Amino acid sequence: MTDSPRFAVLLSGCGVFDGAEVTESVLTLLAIDRRGASYQCFAPDVPQMHVIDHRTGQPTGETRNVLTEAARIPRGAIKDIAEFNPADFDALILPGGFGAAKNLCTFAVDGPDCTVLPAVETALKAAHGAGLPIGALCIAPAVIARVFGGVTLTIGSDAGTAEALTKMRANHQATTHGEVVVDPALKIVTSPCYMLDATVSQIAEGTDNAVESLMEFIRQG
Amino acid sequence: MTDSPRFAVLLSGCGVFDGAEVTESVLTLLAIDRRGASYQCFAPDVPQMHVIDHRTGQPTGETRNVLTEAARIPRGAIKDIAEFNPADFDALILPGGFGAAKNLCTFAVDGPDCTVLPAVETALKAAHGAGLPIGALCIAPAVIARVFGGVTLTIGSDAGTAEALTKMRANHQATTHGEVVVDPALKIVTSPCYMLDATVSQIAEGTDNAVESLMEFIRQG
Repeated sequence: MTDSPRFAVLLSGCGVFDGAEVTESVLTLLAIDRRGASYQCFAPDVPQMHVIDHRTGQPTGETRNVLTEAARIPRGAIKDIAEFNPADFDALILPGGFGAAKNLCTFAVDGPDCTVLPAVETALKAAHGAGLPIGALCIAPAVIARVFGGVTLTIGSDAGTAEALTKMRANHQATTHGEVVVDPALKIVTSPCYMLDATVSQIAEGTDNAVESLMEFIRQG
Repeated sequence: MTDSPRFAVLLSGCGVFDGAEVTESVLTLLAIDRRGASYQCFAPDVPQMHVIDHRTGQPTGETRNVLTEAARIPRGAIKDIAEFNPADFDALILPGGFGAAKNLCTFAVDGPDCTVLPAVETALKAAHGAGLPIGALCIAPAVIARVFGGVTLTIGSDAGTAEALTKMRANHQATTHGEVVVDPALKIVTSPCYMLDATVSQIAEGTDNAVESLMEFIRQG
Protein backbone atom coordinates (compact mmCIF):
# COMPACT_ATOMS: atom_id res chain seq x y z
CA MET A 1 0.00 0.00 0.00
CA THR A 2 1.15 3.49 -0.81
CA ASP A 3 1.42 5.63 2.33
CA SER A 4 -0.30 8.65 0.83
CA PRO A 5 -2.25 7.62 -2.28
CA ARG A 6 -2.18 9.99 -5.24
CA PHE A 7 -5.34 10.53 -7.29
CA ALA A 8 -5.56 11.98 -10.78
CA VAL A 9 -8.97 13.64 -11.30
CA LEU A 10 -10.01 14.14 -14.93
CA LEU A 11 -12.42 17.08 -15.34
CA SER A 12 -14.31 18.06 -18.51
CA GLY A 13 -15.07 21.76 -17.97
CA CYS A 14 -17.08 23.54 -15.25
CA GLY A 15 -20.86 23.19 -15.15
CA VAL A 16 -23.21 20.25 -15.53
CA PHE A 17 -24.66 21.12 -18.95
CA ASP A 18 -21.42 21.68 -20.90
CA GLY A 19 -18.64 20.57 -18.55
CA ALA A 20 -17.83 18.71 -15.36
CA GLU A 21 -20.62 18.47 -12.80
CA VAL A 22 -19.45 20.95 -10.14
CA THR A 23 -20.83 19.20 -7.05
CA GLU A 24 -19.56 15.77 -8.12
CA SER A 25 -16.13 17.27 -8.81
CA VAL A 26 -15.80 19.10 -5.48
CA LEU A 27 -17.13 16.16 -3.47
CA THR A 28 -14.70 13.81 -5.22
CA LEU A 29 -11.83 16.07 -4.12
CA LEU A 30 -13.28 16.17 -0.58
CA ALA A 31 -13.52 12.36 -0.42
CA ILE A 32 -9.89 12.06 -1.55
CA ASP A 33 -8.60 14.74 0.82
CA ARG A 34 -10.48 13.32 3.81
CA ARG A 35 -8.62 10.03 3.36
CA GLY A 36 -5.24 11.74 3.60
CA ALA A 37 -4.69 11.16 -0.11
CA SER A 38 -3.53 13.84 -2.56
CA TYR A 39 -4.97 14.83 -5.92
CA GLN A 40 -4.00 16.54 -9.15
CA CYS A 41 -6.73 17.72 -11.49
CA PHE A 42 -6.43 17.33 -15.26
CA ALA A 43 -8.56 18.24 -18.29
CA PRO A 44 -8.06 18.17 -22.06
CA ASP A 45 -6.78 21.35 -23.73
CA VAL A 46 -9.49 21.48 -26.41
CA PRO A 47 -12.52 23.67 -27.17
CA GLN A 48 -15.77 22.72 -25.43
CA MET A 49 -18.38 21.14 -27.73
CA HIS A 50 -20.44 24.24 -26.95
CA VAL A 51 -21.29 26.65 -24.13
CA ILE A 52 -24.67 26.28 -22.41
CA ASP A 53 -26.35 29.13 -20.52
CA HIS A 54 -27.12 27.27 -17.29
CA ARG A 55 -30.13 29.53 -16.54
CA THR A 56 -31.89 28.84 -19.85
CA GLY A 57 -30.36 25.54 -20.95
CA GLN A 58 -29.67 27.05 -24.38
CA PRO A 59 -26.33 27.25 -26.29
CA THR A 60 -24.82 30.73 -26.21
CA GLY A 61 -22.62 30.65 -29.31
CA GLU A 62 -19.54 31.38 -27.21
CA THR A 63 -16.29 29.41 -27.47
CA ARG A 64 -14.57 28.22 -24.29
CA ASN A 65 -11.65 25.86 -23.60
CA VAL A 66 -12.25 22.73 -21.50
CA LEU A 67 -8.97 23.01 -19.56
CA THR A 68 -9.38 26.74 -18.91
CA GLU A 69 -12.94 26.36 -17.59
CA ALA A 70 -12.14 23.22 -15.58
CA ALA A 71 -9.42 25.26 -13.83
CA ARG A 72 -12.20 27.14 -12.01
CA ILE A 73 -12.94 24.10 -9.84
CA PRO A 74 -9.43 23.48 -8.34
CA ARG A 75 -8.48 27.19 -8.10
CA GLY A 76 -6.17 27.06 -11.13
CA ALA A 77 -4.22 23.96 -10.01
CA ILE A 78 -4.78 21.87 -13.13
CA LYS A 79 -2.76 20.21 -15.90
CA ASP A 80 -3.36 19.17 -19.49
CA ILE A 81 -4.36 15.48 -19.57
CA ALA A 82 -1.70 15.06 -22.28
CA GLU A 83 0.84 15.46 -19.44
CA PHE A 84 -0.66 12.63 -17.37
CA ASN A 85 1.94 10.02 -16.34
CA PRO A 86 0.46 6.99 -14.57
CA ALA A 87 3.73 6.45 -12.69
CA ASP A 88 2.90 9.57 -10.66
CA PHE A 89 -0.50 8.27 -9.49
CA ASP A 90 -2.25 5.41 -7.69
CA ALA A 91 -5.74 5.94 -9.14
CA LEU A 92 -7.64 7.93 -11.78
CA ILE A 93 -11.21 9.18 -11.38
CA LEU A 94 -13.62 10.94 -13.75
CA PRO A 95 -16.49 12.97 -12.24
CA GLY A 96 -19.55 13.29 -14.47
CA GLY A 97 -21.53 16.11 -16.03
CA PHE A 98 -22.44 16.42 -19.71
CA GLY A 99 -18.84 17.47 -20.32
CA ALA A 100 -17.82 13.82 -19.97
CA ALA A 101 -20.21 12.97 -22.83
CA LYS A 102 -19.57 16.12 -24.89
CA ASN A 103 -15.91 17.03 -24.36
CA LEU A 104 -14.16 13.78 -23.36
CA CYS A 105 -16.05 11.72 -25.96
CA THR A 106 -18.89 12.20 -28.43
CA PHE A 107 -21.47 10.08 -26.56
CA ALA A 108 -23.94 12.99 -26.21
CA VAL A 109 -24.11 13.24 -30.01
CA ASP A 110 -23.20 9.78 -31.30
CA GLY A 111 -24.44 7.47 -28.52
CA PRO A 112 -22.94 3.97 -28.81
CA ASP A 113 -21.08 5.01 -31.99
CA CYS A 114 -19.13 7.61 -30.04
CA THR A 115 -15.40 8.21 -30.23
CA VAL A 116 -13.13 9.24 -27.34
CA LEU A 117 -10.78 12.21 -27.45
CA PRO A 118 -7.35 10.71 -28.25
CA ALA A 119 -5.59 12.33 -25.27
CA VAL A 120 -8.27 10.93 -22.94
CA GLU A 121 -8.14 7.44 -24.46
CA THR A 122 -4.35 7.46 -24.19
CA ALA A 123 -4.51 8.48 -20.52
CA LEU A 124 -7.14 5.85 -19.66
CA LYS A 125 -5.22 3.07 -21.40
CA ALA A 126 -1.96 4.17 -19.79
CA ALA A 127 -3.56 4.20 -16.34
CA HIS A 128 -5.09 0.77 -16.87
CA GLY A 129 -1.86 -0.58 -18.33
CA ALA A 130 0.03 0.58 -15.24
CA GLY A 131 -2.44 -1.24 -12.98
CA LEU A 132 -4.23 1.82 -11.65
CA PRO A 133 -7.87 1.46 -10.61
CA ILE A 134 -10.17 3.85 -12.47
CA GLY A 135 -13.36 5.45 -11.19
CA ALA A 136 -16.15 7.07 -13.21
CA LEU A 137 -19.25 8.88 -11.94
CA CYS A 138 -22.62 9.81 -13.45
CA ILE A 139 -22.37 9.66 -17.29
CA ALA A 140 -18.54 9.30 -17.32
CA PRO A 141 -18.89 5.47 -17.50
CA ALA A 142 -19.79 6.04 -21.18
CA VAL A 143 -16.14 6.97 -21.78
CA ILE A 144 -15.04 3.86 -19.88
CA ALA A 145 -17.36 1.59 -21.90
CA ARG A 146 -16.03 2.94 -25.19
CA VAL A 147 -12.39 2.46 -24.17
CA PHE A 148 -12.61 -0.84 -22.25
CA GLY A 149 -15.49 -2.70 -23.92
CA GLY A 150 -16.69 -5.61 -21.81
CA VAL A 151 -16.67 -3.79 -18.48
CA THR A 152 -19.22 -4.20 -15.69
CA LEU A 153 -20.48 -0.75 -14.69
CA THR A 154 -23.45 1.45 -13.78
CA ILE A 155 -25.02 4.72 -14.85
CA GLY A 156 -27.92 4.31 -12.43
CA SER A 157 -31.30 3.27 -13.77
CA ASP A 158 -31.92 5.11 -17.08
CA ALA A 159 -32.94 2.40 -19.55
CA GLY A 160 -32.00 4.28 -22.73
CA THR A 161 -28.50 5.15 -21.52
CA ALA A 162 -27.97 1.64 -20.17
CA GLU A 163 -28.96 0.22 -23.57
CA ALA A 164 -26.45 2.46 -25.32
CA LEU A 165 -23.71 1.23 -22.97
CA THR A 166 -24.74 -2.36 -23.58
CA LYS A 167 -24.33 -1.73 -27.33
CA MET A 168 -20.72 -0.80 -26.50
CA ARG A 169 -20.42 -4.30 -24.91
CA ALA A 170 -20.63 -3.05 -21.32
CA ASN A 171 -22.43 -5.13 -18.69
CA HIS A 172 -24.74 -2.59 -17.07
CA GLN A 173 -25.98 -3.06 -13.52
CA ALA A 174 -28.85 -0.86 -12.25
CA THR A 175 -28.08 1.04 -9.04
CA THR A 176 -29.58 3.65 -6.76
CA HIS A 177 -28.13 6.48 -4.63
CA GLY A 178 -24.69 5.90 -3.17
CA GLU A 179 -24.23 2.47 -4.70
CA VAL A 180 -21.01 1.51 -6.44
CA VAL A 181 -20.40 -1.16 -9.07
CA VAL A 182 -16.92 -2.65 -9.06
CA ASP A 183 -15.39 -4.59 -11.94
CA PRO A 184 -12.68 -6.48 -10.02
CA ALA A 185 -10.81 -7.75 -13.09
CA LEU A 186 -10.56 -4.37 -14.83
CA LYS A 187 -10.32 -2.46 -11.51
CA ILE A 188 -13.08 -0.11 -12.59
CA VAL A 189 -15.44 1.59 -10.10
CA THR A 190 -18.65 3.42 -11.12
CA SER A 191 -21.47 5.19 -9.25
CA PRO A 192 -24.59 6.92 -10.65
CA CYS A 193 -24.50 10.26 -8.78
CA TYR A 194 -26.52 12.86 -10.77
CA MET A 195 -27.68 10.28 -13.34
CA LEU A 196 -30.33 9.95 -10.63
CA ASP A 197 -32.39 12.84 -9.27
CA ALA A 198 -30.21 13.34 -6.19
CA THR A 199 -29.57 15.64 -3.25
CA VAL A 200 -26.12 17.05 -2.53
CA SER A 201 -25.84 14.64 0.43
CA GLN A 202 -26.59 11.69 -1.85
CA ILE A 203 -23.86 12.86 -4.23
CA ALA A 204 -21.47 13.02 -1.27
CA GLU A 205 -22.37 9.43 -0.42
CA GLY A 206 -21.73 8.30 -4.01
CA THR A 207 -18.40 10.08 -4.41
CA ASP A 208 -17.29 8.90 -0.98
CA ASN A 209 -18.14 5.27 -1.71
CA ALA A 210 -16.49 5.41 -5.14
CA VAL A 211 -13.27 6.88 -3.73
CA GLU A 212 -13.30 4.28 -0.93
CA SER A 213 -13.60 1.50 -3.52
CA LEU A 214 -10.58 2.92 -5.34
CA MET A 215 -8.72 3.06 -2.01
CA GLU A 216 -9.43 -0.63 -1.49
CA PHE A 217 -7.77 -1.44 -4.83
CA ILE A 218 -4.81 0.77 -3.87
CA ARG A 219 -4.43 -1.02 -0.52
CA GLN A 220 -4.42 -4.35 -2.32
CA GLY A 221 -1.54 -3.00 -4.42
CA MET B 1 -37.90 26.58 15.59
CA THR B 2 -38.76 26.05 11.94
CA ASP B 3 -39.18 22.35 11.13
CA SER B 4 -37.18 22.49 7.91
CA PRO B 5 -35.06 25.64 7.83
CA ARG B 6 -34.77 27.45 4.52
CA PHE B 7 -31.43 28.97 3.49
CA ALA B 8 -30.86 31.60 0.83
CA VAL B 9 -27.34 31.26 -0.63
CA LEU B 10 -25.98 34.34 -2.39
CA LEU B 11 -23.40 33.46 -5.07
CA SER B 12 -21.22 35.89 -7.03
CA GLY B 13 -20.32 33.93 -10.17
CA CYS B 14 -18.43 30.63 -10.61
CA GLY B 15 -14.69 30.48 -9.97
CA VAL B 16 -12.48 31.84 -7.21
CA PHE B 17 -10.73 34.58 -9.20
CA ASP B 18 -13.77 36.32 -10.72
CA GLY B 19 -16.77 34.73 -9.02
CA ALA B 20 -17.94 32.57 -6.15
CA GLU B 21 -15.37 30.15 -4.73
CA VAL B 22 -16.62 26.82 -6.09
CA THR B 23 -15.58 24.56 -3.19
CA GLU B 24 -16.93 26.95 -0.54
CA SER B 25 -20.22 27.19 -2.45
CA VAL B 26 -20.70 23.43 -2.88
CA LEU B 27 -19.70 22.64 0.70
CA THR B 28 -22.10 25.30 2.00
CA LEU B 29 -24.92 23.56 0.12
CA LEU B 30 -23.76 20.19 1.49
CA ALA B 31 -23.74 21.49 5.07
CA ILE B 32 -27.28 22.85 4.64
CA ASP B 33 -28.60 19.69 2.96
CA ARG B 34 -27.04 17.39 5.58
CA ARG B 35 -29.03 19.18 8.29
CA GLY B 36 -32.32 18.47 6.53
CA ALA B 37 -32.61 22.14 5.62
CA SER B 38 -33.42 23.41 2.12
CA TYR B 39 -31.69 26.06 0.03
CA GLN B 40 -32.29 28.41 -2.85
CA CYS B 41 -29.33 29.98 -4.63
CA PHE B 42 -29.35 33.61 -5.74
CA ALA B 43 -26.96 35.93 -7.58
CA PRO B 44 -27.17 39.45 -8.99
CA ASP B 45 -28.14 39.82 -12.66
CA VAL B 46 -25.22 42.10 -13.59
CA PRO B 47 -22.03 41.78 -15.66
CA GLN B 48 -18.98 40.39 -13.85
CA MET B 49 -16.29 42.98 -13.08
CA HIS B 50 -14.13 40.95 -15.47
CA VAL B 51 -13.39 37.37 -16.54
CA ILE B 52 -10.18 35.76 -15.28
CA ASP B 53 -8.51 32.82 -17.05
CA HIS B 54 -8.07 30.53 -14.04
CA ARG B 55 -5.03 28.81 -15.59
CA THR B 56 -3.06 32.02 -16.09
CA GLY B 57 -4.65 34.40 -13.59
CA GLN B 58 -5.01 37.01 -16.35
CA PRO B 59 -8.16 38.85 -17.52
CA THR B 60 -9.49 37.52 -20.83
CA GLY B 61 -11.43 40.52 -22.11
CA GLU B 62 -14.64 38.46 -22.22
CA THR B 63 -17.95 39.64 -20.75
CA ARG B 64 -19.98 37.27 -18.58
CA ASN B 65 -23.06 37.70 -16.39
CA VAL B 66 -22.80 36.95 -12.65
CA LEU B 67 -26.20 35.22 -12.41
CA THR B 68 -25.64 33.16 -15.56
CA GLU B 69 -22.22 31.91 -14.44
CA ALA B 70 -23.33 31.31 -10.84
CA ALA B 71 -26.09 29.06 -12.26
CA ARG B 72 -23.35 26.51 -13.07
CA ILE B 73 -22.96 25.64 -9.38
CA PRO B 74 -26.60 24.69 -8.51
CA ARG B 75 -27.38 23.08 -11.91
CA GLY B 76 -29.45 26.04 -13.13
CA ALA B 77 -31.63 26.33 -10.01
CA ILE B 78 -30.93 29.97 -9.24
CA LYS B 79 -32.81 33.26 -8.94
CA ASP B 80 -31.99 36.95 -9.30
CA ILE B 81 -31.18 38.41 -5.86
CA ALA B 82 -33.64 41.20 -6.72
CA GLU B 83 -36.37 38.56 -6.20
CA PHE B 84 -35.18 37.68 -2.67
CA ASN B 85 -37.99 37.87 -0.09
CA PRO B 86 -36.81 37.34 3.50
CA ALA B 87 -40.26 35.99 4.46
CA ASP B 88 -39.42 32.87 2.43
CA PHE B 89 -36.20 32.12 4.35
CA ASP B 90 -34.73 31.47 7.80
CA ALA B 91 -31.12 32.43 7.04
CA LEU B 92 -28.92 33.98 4.35
CA ILE B 93 -25.33 32.95 3.63
CA LEU B 94 -22.65 34.32 1.29
CA PRO B 95 -19.82 32.00 0.21
CA GLY B 96 -16.56 33.74 -0.69
CA GLY B 97 -14.32 34.00 -3.72
CA PHE B 98 -13.12 37.21 -5.35
CA GLY B 99 -16.61 37.54 -6.83
CA ALA B 100 -17.83 38.70 -3.41
CA ALA B 101 -15.27 41.54 -3.54
CA LYS B 102 -15.59 42.25 -7.28
CA ASN B 103 -19.23 41.61 -8.20
CA LEU B 104 -21.21 42.04 -4.96
CA CYS B 105 -19.23 45.11 -3.92
CA THR B 106 -16.18 47.05 -5.07
CA PHE B 107 -13.87 46.02 -2.20
CA ALA B 108 -11.30 44.45 -4.56
CA VAL B 109 -10.81 47.84 -6.23
CA ASP B 110 -11.79 50.41 -3.60
CA GLY B 111 -10.91 48.68 -0.31
CA PRO B 112 -12.55 50.38 2.68
CA ASP B 113 -14.09 53.00 0.36
CA CYS B 114 -16.07 50.30 -1.45
CA THR B 115 -19.74 50.44 -2.36
CA VAL B 116 -22.16 47.51 -2.38
CA LEU B 117 -24.33 46.58 -5.36
CA PRO B 118 -27.76 48.07 -4.54
CA ALA B 119 -29.67 44.79 -5.03
CA VAL B 120 -27.26 43.06 -2.64
CA GLU B 121 -27.45 45.82 -0.03
CA THR B 122 -31.26 45.76 -0.24
CA ALA B 123 -31.33 41.96 0.26
CA LEU B 124 -28.92 42.06 3.20
CA LYS B 125 -30.83 44.84 4.95
CA ALA B 126 -34.16 43.11 4.29
CA ALA B 127 -32.81 39.82 5.71
CA HIS B 128 -31.45 41.57 8.79
CA GLY B 129 -34.61 43.61 9.22
CA ALA B 130 -36.67 40.41 9.17
CA GLY B 131 -34.49 38.92 11.93
CA LEU B 132 -32.65 36.40 9.75
CA PRO B 133 -29.13 35.39 10.77
CA ILE B 134 -26.56 36.06 8.02
CA GLY B 135 -23.40 34.09 7.30
CA ALA B 136 -20.37 35.20 5.25
CA LEU B 137 -17.29 33.15 4.31
CA CYS B 138 -13.77 34.02 3.16
CA ILE B 139 -13.74 37.62 1.81
CA ALA B 140 -17.56 37.98 1.82
CA PRO B 141 -17.41 39.60 5.30
CA ALA B 142 -16.18 42.72 3.44
CA VAL B 143 -19.72 43.11 2.07
CA ILE B 144 -21.13 42.63 5.58
CA ALA B 145 -18.78 45.23 7.07
CA ARG B 146 -19.76 47.82 4.48
CA VAL B 147 -23.51 47.26 5.02
CA PHE B 148 -23.61 46.77 8.80
CA GLY B 149 -20.74 48.87 10.12
CA GLY B 150 -19.83 47.96 13.70
CA VAL B 151 -20.03 44.21 13.30
CA THR B 152 -17.71 41.67 14.93
CA LEU B 153 -16.36 39.34 12.23
CA THR B 154 -13.35 37.51 10.80
CA ILE B 155 -11.55 37.14 7.50
CA GLY B 156 -8.86 34.91 9.03
CA SER B 157 -5.44 36.39 9.73
CA ASP B 158 -4.49 38.68 6.82
CA ALA B 159 -3.42 41.96 8.46
CA GLY B 160 -4.02 44.21 5.45
CA THR B 161 -7.53 42.93 4.83
CA ALA B 162 -8.34 43.07 8.54
CA GLU B 163 -7.17 46.72 8.62
CA ALA B 164 -9.43 47.58 5.68
CA LEU B 165 -12.39 46.02 7.50
CA THR B 166 -11.51 47.95 10.65
CA LYS B 167 -11.60 51.15 8.60
CA MET B 168 -15.20 50.22 7.79
CA ARG B 169 -15.83 50.15 11.59
CA ALA B 170 -15.81 46.32 11.83
CA ASN B 171 -14.33 44.63 14.90
CA HIS B 172 -12.03 42.03 13.36
CA GLN B 173 -11.08 38.87 15.26
CA ALA B 174 -8.23 36.71 13.94
CA THR B 175 -9.15 33.06 13.36
CA THR B 176 -7.70 29.87 11.94
CA HIS B 177 -9.16 26.88 10.05
CA GLY B 178 -12.75 25.96 10.84
CA GLU B 179 -13.24 28.71 13.39
CA VAL B 180 -16.37 30.85 13.35
CA VAL B 181 -16.90 34.34 14.75
CA VAL B 182 -20.44 35.09 15.86
CA ASP B 183 -21.85 38.57 16.42
CA PRO B 184 -24.79 37.70 18.69
CA ALA B 185 -26.47 41.11 18.53
CA LEU B 186 -26.41 41.40 14.74
CA LYS B 187 -26.82 37.61 14.24
CA ILE B 188 -23.86 37.56 11.87
CA VAL B 189 -21.62 34.50 11.45
CA THR B 190 -18.25 34.55 9.63
CA SER B 191 -15.49 32.00 8.94
CA PRO B 192 -12.18 32.44 7.05
CA CYS B 193 -12.26 29.43 4.67
CA TYR B 194 -9.95 30.16 1.69
CA MET B 195 -8.72 33.47 3.16
CA LEU B 196 -6.32 30.96 4.73
CA ASP B 197 -4.22 28.47 2.74
CA ALA B 198 -6.60 25.55 3.28
CA THR B 199 -7.35 21.98 2.25
CA VAL B 200 -10.77 20.97 0.95
CA SER B 201 -11.42 19.19 4.28
CA GLN B 202 -10.63 22.40 6.18
CA ILE B 203 -13.11 24.27 3.97
CA ALA B 204 -15.73 21.61 4.76
CA GLU B 205 -15.07 22.18 8.48
CA GLY B 206 -15.49 25.95 8.08
CA THR B 207 -18.67 25.80 6.03
CA ASP B 208 -20.12 23.16 8.33
CA ASN B 209 -19.40 25.18 11.47
CA ALA B 210 -20.76 28.39 9.90
CA VAL B 211 -24.00 26.68 8.83
CA GLU B 212 -24.33 25.10 12.29
CA SER B 213 -23.97 28.55 13.91
CA LEU B 214 -26.75 29.84 11.65
CA MET B 215 -28.88 26.82 12.66
CA GLU B 216 -28.38 27.75 16.31
CA PHE B 217 -29.81 31.22 15.63
CA ILE B 218 -32.73 29.63 13.74
CA ARG B 219 -33.48 27.26 16.64
CA GLN B 220 -33.51 30.23 19.02
CA GLY B 221 -36.16 31.79 16.75
